[in-house]
Amino acid sequence: MQDDLSRTFSALADPTRRAILARLAEGEANVSELAAPFLASMSLPAVTKHLKVLEHAGLISKGRQAQWRPCRLNGEPLRDAVDWMAQYREAWEAQLDRLGAYLKTKTQGDRRGNND
Amino acid sequence: MQDDLSRTFSALADPTRRAILARLAEGEANVSELAAPFLASMSLPAVTKHLKVLEHAGLISKGRQAQWRPCRLNGEPLRDAVDWMAQYREAWEAQLDRLGAYLKTKTQGDRRGNND
Repeated sequence: MQDDLSRTFSALADPTRRAILARLAEGEANVSELAAPFLASMSLPAVTKHLKVLEHAGLISKGRQAQWRPCRLNGEPLRDAVDWMAQYREAWEAQLDRLGAYLKTKTQGDRRGNND
Repeated sequence: MQDDLSRTFSALADPTRRAILARLAEGEANVSELAAPFLASMSLPAVTKHLKVLEHAGLISKGRQAQWRPCRLNGEPLRDAVDWMAQYREAWEAQLDRLGAYLKTKTQGDRRGNND
């Protein structure tokens, strides 16, 4: 069985699903509204399959009104994913800083080498 | 072909691969060192397969010394993933705040209901 964090990252690993989340970040929308931008390149069942993956990962939920069941974004799993990344961000940033400093020194060294 | 961001999220969607990245956030390590904590529950080829996924996603790279080829973390793909999430974070946080405010009101209402 997949753990929560793996399910979240797995759901995010697709451009259509990320676009759907981006749309929902602007506000609730129903399935037809969410599907509209993709129907030129994929079928409605393909879009609803993506919605099911997002729903299964807890990233979206559907309203209970029978007539108009809007989808909405659930922030919690995304927050957990950001938290996981933030934990190591300091280490990555430090490595990026070191790389940046190294490249800067190297470029300056190369420039000096060219001018001499 | 998978896009960069999808490849990053896909690589993160596994607890073993996340544990390897967490280990590398502390500093470089070679394959045997990285594999050691997992060999009770999986084979060395299984661990090296995970390393290949991380390498393919550009999340780690291997040093060039023939004798000791340490793996190191590459921060850039992770930074791109965090950036993607940060873009929508404001919307999620606002939704979480609204949910929090709603739950608070509801709890207070329930308490009042019980006290009346």
